[in-house]
Amino acid sequence: MVQATIIGARGYLGRELLRLLTHHPEVDMVHAASTSTVGEPIRDHIGWFRGKQTFVAHDDDAALDADVVFLATPGGEAAGLVQTYEAAGVKTVIDLSRDHRLAALRGEDRWIYGLADVLPTPKGANRIANPGCYPTASLLAMAPALQNNLVAPGPIIVDGKSGVSGAGVSPRADLHFPEMNESVRAYNVLGHDHTDEMSAAAGRLNGGIHPVRFTPHLVPQTRGLLSTVYMPYTGEGDVEAAYEQAYADHPFVDFGREPSTNTVRLSNNAQVDVDVDEHTGLIVARCAIDNLVKGGSGTAVQNMNLAFGFDPSTGLLGTGGGL
Amino acid sequence: MVQATIIGARGYLGRELLRLLTHHPEVDMVHAASTSTVGEPIRDHIGWFRGKQTFVAHDDDAALDADVVFLATPGGEAAGLVQTYEAAGVKTVIDLSRDHRLAALRGEDRWIYGLADVLPTPKGANRIANPGCYPTASLLAMAPALQNNLVAPGPIIVDGKSGVSGAGVSPRADLHFPEMNESVRAYNVLGHDHTDEMSAAAGRLNGGIHPVRFTPHLVPQTRGLLSTVYMPYTGEGDVEAAYEQAYADHPFVDFGREPSTNTVRLSNNAQVDVDVDEHTGLIVARCAIDNLVKGGSGTAVQNMNLAFGFDPSTGLLGTGGGL
Amino acid sequence: MVQATIIGARGYLGRELLRLLTHHPEVDMVHAASTSTVGEPIRDHIGWFRGKQTFVAHDDDAALDADVVFLATPGGEAAGLVQTYEAAGVKTVIDLSRDHRLAALRGEDRWIYGLADVLPTPKGANRIANPGCYPTASLLAMAPALQNNLVAPGPIIVDGKSGVSGAGVSPRADLHFPEMNESVRAYNVLGHDHTDEMSAAAGRLNGGIHPVRFTPHLVPQTRGLLSTVYMPYTGEGDVEAAYEQAYADHPFVDFGREPSTNTVRLSNNAQVDVDVDEHTGLIVARCAIDNLVKGGSGTAVQNMNLAFGFDPSTGLLGTGGGL
Amino acid sequence: MVQATIIGARGYLGRELLRLLTHHPEVDMVHAASTSTVGEPIRDHIGWFRGKQTFVAHDDDAALDADVVFLATPGGEAAGLVQTYEAAGVKTVIDLSRDHRLAALRGEDRWIYGLADVLPTPKGANRIANPGCYPTASLLAMAPALQNNLVAPGPIIVDGKSGVSGAGVSPRADLHFPEMNESVRAYNVLGHDHTDEMSAAAGRLNGGIHPVRFTPHLVPQTRGLLSTVYMPYTGEGDVEAAYEQAYADHPFVDFGREPSTNTVRLSNNAQVDVDVDEHTGLIVARCAIDNLVKGGSGTAVQNMNLAFGFDPSTGLLGTGGGL
Repeated sequence: MVQATIIGARGYLGRELLRLLTHHPEVDMVHAASTSTVGEPIRDHIGWFRGKQTFVAHDDDAALDADVVFLATPGGEAAGLVQTYEAAGVKTVIDLSRDHRLAALRGEDRWIYGLADVLPTPKGANRIANPGCYPTASLLAMAPALQNNLVAPGPIIVDGKSGVSGAGVSPRADLHFPEMNESVRAYNVLGHDHTDEMSAAAGRLNGGIHPVRFTPHLVPQTRGLLSTVYMPYTGEGDVEAAYEQAYADHPFVDFGREPSTNTVRLSNNAQVDVDVDEHTGLIVARCAIDNLVKGGSGTAVQNMNLAFGFDPSTGLLGTGGGL
Repeated sequence: MVQATIIGARGYLGRELLRLLTHHPEVDMVHAASTSTVGEPIRDHIGWFRGKQTFVAHDDDAALDADVVFLATPGGEAAGLVQTYEAAGVKTVIDLSRDHRLAALRGEDRWIYGLADVLPTPKGANRIANPGCYPTASLLAMAPALQNNLVAPGPIIVDGKSGVSGAGVSPRADLHFPEMNESVRAYNVLGHDHTDEMSAAAGRLNGGIHPVRFTPHLVPQTRGLLSTVYMPYTGEGDVEAAYEQAYADHPFVDFGREPSTNTVRLSNNAQVDVDVDEHTGLIVARCAIDNLVKGGSGTAVQNMNLAFGFDPSTGLLGTGGGL
Repeated sequence: MVQATIIGARGYLGRELLRLLTHHPEVDMVHAASTSTVGEPIRDHIGWFRGKQTFVAHDDDAALDADVVFLATPGGEAAGLVQTYEAAGVKTVIDLSRDHRLAALRGEDRWIYGLADVLPTPKGANRIANPGCYPTASLLAMAPALQNNLVAPGPIIVDGKSGVSGAGVSPRADLHFPEMNESVRAYNVLGHDHTDEMSAAAGRLNGGIHPVRFTPHLVPQTRGLLSTVYMPYTGEGDVEAAYEQAYADHPFVDFGREPSTNTVRLSNNAQVDVDVDEHTGLIVARCAIDNLVKGGSGTAVQNMNLAFGFDPSTGLLGTGGGL
Repeated sequence: MVQATIIGARGYLGRELLRLLTHHPEVDMVHAASTSTVGEPIRDHIGWFRGKQTFVAHDDDAALDADVVFLATPGGEAAGLVQTYEAAGVKTVIDLSRDHRLAALRGEDRWIYGLADVLPTPKGANRIANPGCYPTASLLAMAPALQNNLVAPGPIIVDGKSGVSGAGVSPRADLHFPEMNESVRAYNVLGHDHTDEMSAAAGRLNGGIHPVRFTPHLVPQTRGLLSTVYMPYTGEGDVEAAYEQAYADHPFVDFGREPSTNTVRLSNNAQVDVDVDEHTGLIVARCAIDNLVKGGSGTAVQNMNLAFGFDPSTGLLGTGGGL
């Protein structure tokens, strides 16, 4: 049995990890660390949590004794924390923040980029950079086209639509219910850090250079993320067959229906569909995920399962239900 | 291992049962019957379902061989179906429709009214009438006051607020997204059949006669049901202590925080809170549940667990996650 | 032509006043005061505003020269501001905050409680206390019953459901979009200051004493407020006819259809309906309004129209559109 | 004063026209025709409507005597209706359906394509094809770039997000509240008829040929439409200055803030912003409108104003209020 610690357990990704790991049959004990609420009952901050545990400090014995640590921390904090955990002998670290992704994609250090259904984490991996939510959906939408050399040179356009939980747990004027309701809008049009992650990962998938134009949008829903991806088509090769085959044996990827965020809500599933627009010569691929599960905590658990040699779907079925 | 069949599996309650039973560790096989879609793949109608099974007819061998049959059918159909299942030797029937509730509450036949956390189903029960969604929340809000004789004579007022999934899966002009969004309204002000169910169940809880004034409302959300219950207070007895004690050992009832439907989303949990308004002499109790889980499918599974002697929470933890 | 100033113009009530007054044919000039944003362009804070004006201070010449001042300020600030405006010779003050309501209802000073369709503001009134949003809807639901002595002694129960804009423009953890979405819940169960306002106003309507039990709830929508009111019925007198007659000549009150917040969105209209529940002897009345318009700014403009002798509906038609 | 008739007044576009025309100071009389509800009170179908008029037939004297007829009919019906109205001597027809748009854009007949802020309708025009909702937003986002030759050859990609009212008033399984809530998804990926309209209109704006890749999406909100448009940049010319200048004197177009549908709700305004992504050489323009107002009824009224020589903003100010 595995002893797990979540750092940053009060945030939306952290509490989603707490939900999944609490009921994971191979996980024995979960410690939830949150520096701002050390010693306070978890249920005072996470309404659905029914246990009596309190939040621990991230350098508590509880946290330091873990077999696996999940970092659900803001960008910039992971490097220091990893040093602490390495010094304490923690074996496996799964970093859900952005901090180790680019280095992992570039092969610059010992971190693995764990896009579970496309770039599966090897058994025994112990430094895993978990992908961002937009890159997860967007790369699932791109991967079969890239891996089968169906994409011609030129920019790939990613138009992403995310539920508001992706913006985090802290209240903000523009995310106040009356302001966000009935509102769809773009944000960070020129500067979202997922752009480089997608571009680097696309390069990993077919060895080419693919400048990515990424425009994230918020839509008035709590969960769910849809990526609509436009790729120049070489004009040769059966696009639909490539996707069909790529995902045939992937229990978490459902290919061939129009993806909708409602359908994957609270689950680790992704829905993918693709069309070729002959008029413009573009491949138009869509992927829907739950931004907090497949886009973060569920993929992290899938990565843990792969790294520890469990069945990849352990603890990840039956958690969602549509609607 | 139990073999289970769901009749009416395409509706919202039916598909929620499918979700819960598919991952229930004591259930071996689930058949999904839906007369209008016999032979069609389940996943063509329920987007999140990943298996390859098809819907069966409700008189298929698959359905008739079950150990337990769940009826998630419209009102009026249960009596005939029960005869069919009895003739076929089906051992246990759990009826989620309204058809057997009043008779069960009045002790007029062999049916048990299975309000799991208040009137627990005995082991071995094999004809179980599952409570309605509004009665479930409302009776959880009333029960400790009634059972401890804290309620004075006079009407009990139940003001219910339900998410739109409670109105069923069929599209309707007033439930069309643009009409229902940004809309709260009462409906069936004088004629909702849950009124008699609540009144009869309240009588069961303290032997008195309690006319119930019940006003249901729809609120613009998919899931969730909040009942606000106003009861005349005798003026004697510690109301809060009665609730605290009543629910102390009930893992599915969370007492003492302001109930919110968000917190119990997709789970079998109920949140209950109570106050005494000294100015008007009223007990004001609130209860929040997920109308499809605790208000239907989750309670049905809890009833099955009790009837078959499993731990009551088997297959019911880890299914929700707030938000 | 009237020169008008809005104090607290950045809040939701204030900006709604700005919308109505900007296009009011008898209003010449609108000054918008907001102490925290003096000198900043209004459009930097209110996205839909297209003019070039800036916010002024509440003691600017612009504000002090007004014919009418609307106070859309937090509770507790009005008394001091009124002194300032009186000293400056401002003729008419309409206070949308709670500060002068109880005194006006009790006839303790020269303030008028301006519940426009029930207690019409006399021409020439110059100190007008504008009702709260919940009292507006609740009293419209109660008034014909009270005025026609159809209500027996005993508490009146008001179960209110409000959209989130009623909680104000400041972001708050519990109003963060992901927390408020899919959530209905009660709040301030024992301490909402609209309770006393409703009780005092009910007394004004029939001379009796009516303890009010008021439970406010938030529902996941931006605008709209529905009050469901339960009153003990004397058993004598035609309830429906009383309502029909009371509102026959009131262009802003629509009696006889099931009220829905969607229908009155952005308008100054109220929808009212009533039933008698013979089983419990209760009158069950419902009223739906737009909490920011009829529940605040629209009634304030209606009060201004009455006080200045304009047609009551001036500037208040054509502003809403359902949905 | 103008006498106006709306054909198809029961649909969302039709009732929005009814709202605008009822309060238009130059319109004297509005007849509302709806073939399926002839003779029934309008208010039985449109909750917010307070008048006593009934729906007329589209060939009633009431309809045939109009100075201007607005066709808010499903595609395919306009040609026949126009013949009827011409025979009856109706002077001006404004067609909100798709039927005359392509012919108007290609100059094949006497119809004018009335994209009011970009291709202004000439005074005296009497056959006006009103643009589609997606083309309105998308062309407002493209126009300054096209008109100033800032767009290089190659496909233009339009990623559109629309509120659900754009799909019409008829209930549909996929637009049932529980299915549409928390759901974002693409639809008609290869076959939306607005694609050709956008491509032809883009050609009108700079004489070139611009294949358009258009992907429409539904987002869970009632109103609002955001178009995100990707255009290959020539690399020469000041993009921001071109937009700034193009919309400097257009009271209904607000340039330079991040567009959000909430801000333009119920108004005739459009918000536009643009950026150049130097990394991919793409111009990224966004435009937000209310799909029912600027995307249909408001532009139709603007076209009527221009055709009849009224001030273009007559009857179009003060109708919206954000949120």
